Amino acid sequence: METKIGLVGSGNVASHLASSFYEKGIKVIQVWSREYENSKTLAEKIGAEPIRDINSFQNDLDIIIVSVIDDAIKDIATQLADHSAIIAHTSGTTSIDILTVLGDNYGVFYPLNTFSKYAEVDMQNTPFFIEADNDRAKETLKALATQISSKVIDADSKMRRALHIAAVFSCNFNNYLYQVAANILEENKLSFDHIKPLIFQTASKVMTDDPRKVQTGPAAREDYNTINIHLDELENHPDYRNLYKILTEQIIKDK
Amino acid sequence: METKIGLVGSGNVASHLASSFYEKGIKVIQVWSREYENSKTLAEKIGAEPIRDINSFQNDLDIIIVSVIDDAIKDIATQLADHSAIIAHTSGTTSIDILTVLGDNYGVFYPLNTFSKYAEVDMQNTPFFIEADNDRAKETLKALATQISSKVIDADSKMRRALHIAAVFSCNFNNYLYQVAANILEENKLSFDHIKPLIFQTASKVMTDDPRKVQTGPAAREDYNTINIHLDELENHPDYRNLYKILTEQIIKDK
Repeated sequence: METKIGLVGSGNVASHLASSFYEKGIKVIQVWSREYENSKTLAEKIGAEPIRDINSFQNDLDIIIVSVIDDAIKDIATQLADHSAIIAHTSGTTSIDILTVLGDNYGVFYPLNTFSKYAEVDMQNTPFFIEADNDRAKETLKALATQISSKVIDADSKMRRALHIAAVFSCNFNNYLYQVAANILEENKLSFDHIKPLIFQTASKVMTDDPRKVQTGPAAREDYNTINIHLDELENHPDYRNLYKILTEQIIKDK
Repeated sequence: METKIGLVGSGNVASHLASSFYEKGIKVIQVWSREYENSKTLAEKIGAEPIRDINSFQNDLDIIIVSVIDDAIKDIATQLADHSAIIAHTSGTTSIDILTVLGDNYGVFYPLNTFSKYAEVDMQNTPFFIEADNDRAKETLKALATQISSKVIDADSKMRRALHIAAVFSCNFNNYLYQVAANILEENKLSFDHIKPLIFQTASKVMTDDPRKVQTGPAAREDYNTINIHLDELENHPDYRNLYKILTEQIIKDK
């Protein structure tokens, strides 16, 4: 029997999940989002029905994926309390316990990657961390994840929170540092293209090597002469200067 | 006529340059390093002669590449003052002016990438930034760089300094954040492998997109609920907590 999915949300995670389900022939039957127009746009792309009322989800859905901002999960769960489907949120940081309002048959379906509007995501290599209030729900969620990813892993809420924090450091904060680099280059009329091989190499290196063993640069060498020249150069950027100082001190401290 | 190279240094940059020269059939004739054993090891790999005395460089060398820690460049240059070769250092931050002790015929040969002992480097895609005290020296250094890289660019000392600072942010500091993530995962008995697809995706995204336009995560969403949960979770890691706080504030501020 085919698994029937309902989807709540139309943001980046919801959209990428919807596309992956669609590509694998997994049936998303209905989509609800706070803004009906967004539900409609997303639903059209994947041959689903957009619904105006969150209470209009069909009774025969097996799983409803709730992919909304963390603050909205509890309210959505409350509205879905009478539905018999397995209700699963997709948040890294929100505990499974927020879904206890559902009584039973709930879980977490957390894809660990960065989902932005236009960039494609390699879902097959994206790890999915699964948790549920009972074994049957967990197996059903894992079976769904297995259809779109080769990496499906059990994780409780504490582990998932650690994964999310690690993700913030290695993705969001890294992207911010790319942004700082882009601004410094732009101010000096230099192209961001110049540092792309370096960015790529830095990321590629930790695919095989432990980041704690491959650090390079002035901080790792404790080259205070270079560090001081850089700090002087950043004098007109107190925020960047402060970041440079703190991160340099940390690298030296944690060597 | 074949260009004859001398090499000062045996560290990561010197070693990667030496290998690239060797692979392209460019003749490195002699290698000098502070530790003779290191010169010997490197020289043997590339069919060059290790020399014990820096004054033993042959008179007919065309270029001597000085790839040593920034603090040592001036002293090395002073010792090479009588040599007729073009003397070029490989530092991002050190001004060309440190080489004025040479009188004339000097320059900079700066490869922008991260060079660590074991990881291979795609030199063909590594940009080389070239500067010299005269046009003939500059053309000679550019011709050499062109033999190992497809990206050879004129840059003065100020531009090169900006490139180096951008590199520190996008490479060394990023690698430190990978290190933080690795530690957080390890403490929670989670594999660093779980975040590799995310790291790769984050770097891949900025190969085509402006990092200022693709930020994701709790800070970009101003999701203070998640941010506070993460800060609480990092309570036992005051350094990481401090970094999390500062970088989150910066992302929100610079949106």
